[in-house]
Amino acid sequence: MKLGIYFDITKEMVDRCSEITGLPAEVRPDHPTEIELIQKDFLLGPETKLIQTITAGVDHVKITEIPKNVTFCSNADAFSDPVAEHAFALILSHIRKLCTFDSMTKNGTWKKLPVSSLKHKTLGILGYGGIGRSCARLGKAFGMKIIAFTRTPGDGTNVDRFVNKPDEIFRESDVVIIGLPLTKETRGYVGSELLSVFRGDIIVNVARSDIVDKTSMLEFLKKNPEKEYLSDVWWGEPRIDGKIPENAVLTPHVAGLSPDLVEEALIHACHNIRKYLDGKPENVVKREDYI
Amino acid sequence: MKLGIYFDITKEMVDRCSEITGLPAEVRPDHPTEIELIQKDFLLGPETKLIQTITAGVDHVKITEIPKNVTFCSNADAFSDPVAEHAFALILSHIRKLCTFDSMTKNGTWKKLPVSSLKHKTLGILGYGGIGRSCARLGKAFGMKIIAFTRTPGDGTNVDRFVNKPDEIFRESDVVIIGLPLTKETRGYVGSELLSVFRGDIIVNVARSDIVDKTSMLEFLKKNPEKEYLSDVWWGEPRIDGKIPENAVLTPHVAGLSPDLVEEALIHACHNIRKYLDGKPENVVKREDYI
Repeated sequence: MKLGIYFDITKEMVDRCSEITGLPAEVRPDHPTEIELIQKDFLLGPETKLIQTITAGVDHVKITEIPKNVTFCSNADAFSDPVAEHAFALILSHIRKLCTFDSMTKNGTWKKLPVSSLKHKTLGILGYGGIGRSCARLGKAFGMKIIAFTRTPGDGTNVDRFVNKPDEIFRESDVVIIGLPLTKETRGYVGSELLSVFRGDIIVNVARSDIVDKTSMLEFLKKNPEKEYLSDVWWGEPRIDGKIPENAVLTPHVAGLSPDLVEEALIHACHNIRKYLDGKPENVVKREDYI
Repeated sequence: MKLGIYFDITKEMVDRCSEITGLPAEVRPDHPTEIELIQKDFLLGPETKLIQTITAGVDHVKITEIPKNVTFCSNADAFSDPVAEHAFALILSHIRKLCTFDSMTKNGTWKKLPVSSLKHKTLGILGYGGIGRSCARLGKAFGMKIIAFTRTPGDGTNVDRFVNKPDEIFRESDVVIIGLPLTKETRGYVGSELLSVFRGDIIVNVARSDIVDKTSMLEFLKKNPEKEYLSDVWWGEPRIDGKIPENAVLTPHVAGLSPDLVEEALIHACHNIRKYLDGKPENVVKREDYI
């Protein structure tokens, strides 16, 4: 049995993958392998048994082309900590006006402007998977009150209250973080209905652009120039169509990109391959969520 | 006995101060009062018993003019949480390249650049008072290893190890946060000796400019363009003499400025006044540290 790795990594990391899975490993093999570790593209053969992504989300993978007898696993939770860190970077940089102050002071101007703080504010988390849990831990450390919405409440460490409906998140929070996977059910999930009841200041998207309805969000930002959309994703990325609103701050889908943590995610995926070989795979994708 | 408040606050907050201290309160009284709550300036009379600052640091107060029979208290720890939050805002915004990405995407460019993450990095904290403790709590939540240096080790929650000498902080840390008070002993404390052994990337100052030796730091930044000084303070502020180095990011002493938290600090100070009246004042300033 062989492990095929369908993206480029260092020789050292190939050896590490081999060691963890207990399988000989090959990068970008010419022929399909029994076990495939992929980013997006894969090869399929009659012997292919498992497709494991290095990415946490699987919405970019052509799931319809994976036969039902092939197990398909995501790398859910592997990037949760760096992604949550990015969410807080976006929030803190904004409320502390860092880009404004940097450019003002570099131009020789020392002028105080009001800043705000996270302490005592309410953080609403939409989707309580790995990213949600990491965000709750960080929010708690900053002294925030944490509320969360999920279809599947589990471990509620750091959550003050799970709410029953997503609109409660928007009604009660100062800051909302979107941490949902993009599935057929969550596409366009954050639309005019939820946005119209939002009482807070900041909506953060560190998940996928299409969870938010583009037209509704652009209208919301136009109507509410004092509210802010901080996002690591954008509709149609890497293209940017039209002008980015002044009250949107974007980063080019880099939340999980830190090189040392990509290695950590690779190791996380290899451990799941080992679990599959031992008959206990985790993060098996429910195809019906996507197709 | 009367409480004089020597800076402007709302009527509502005056009432709150009165309620907590149990004293009639007056804003900007014409005559010295027994108890004085000050920002910087104060009046002195034969009846003055206590001078309590709203600020955490007291280096800006003319301590030599306060007679020895007057108790002088700082508001240490009152701003620790917002100041630590500001330190992490500076760090995260920098390592996630937020200002660069914001300006690139607003110009229509979606281009990934490498970012880094705090997870598994070492945070060195110089001075383990209120700010240090808050920074340790936040660093731990981000998955950092925490080392700290202090003359007076106390509660070490969230600290992995106290080191014996300040140079160990600079030798071992990826990120150093300066959280010392400015006293006669700490003036120029971070100079060429400590900077020359610094192995990490980022030095953060959310304390006072003069704890860092200006000439040494400017030389260090020039010699090490890949290293960064992130600071809420600057020598000679609010004036900026000369050009700010490209690898320095400044904010104009706003770390503790959040309006709701200024109220919290006021309440913190009033509780200490009450403690003084009950014979148990805290944060009594050791004059010999300053004079």
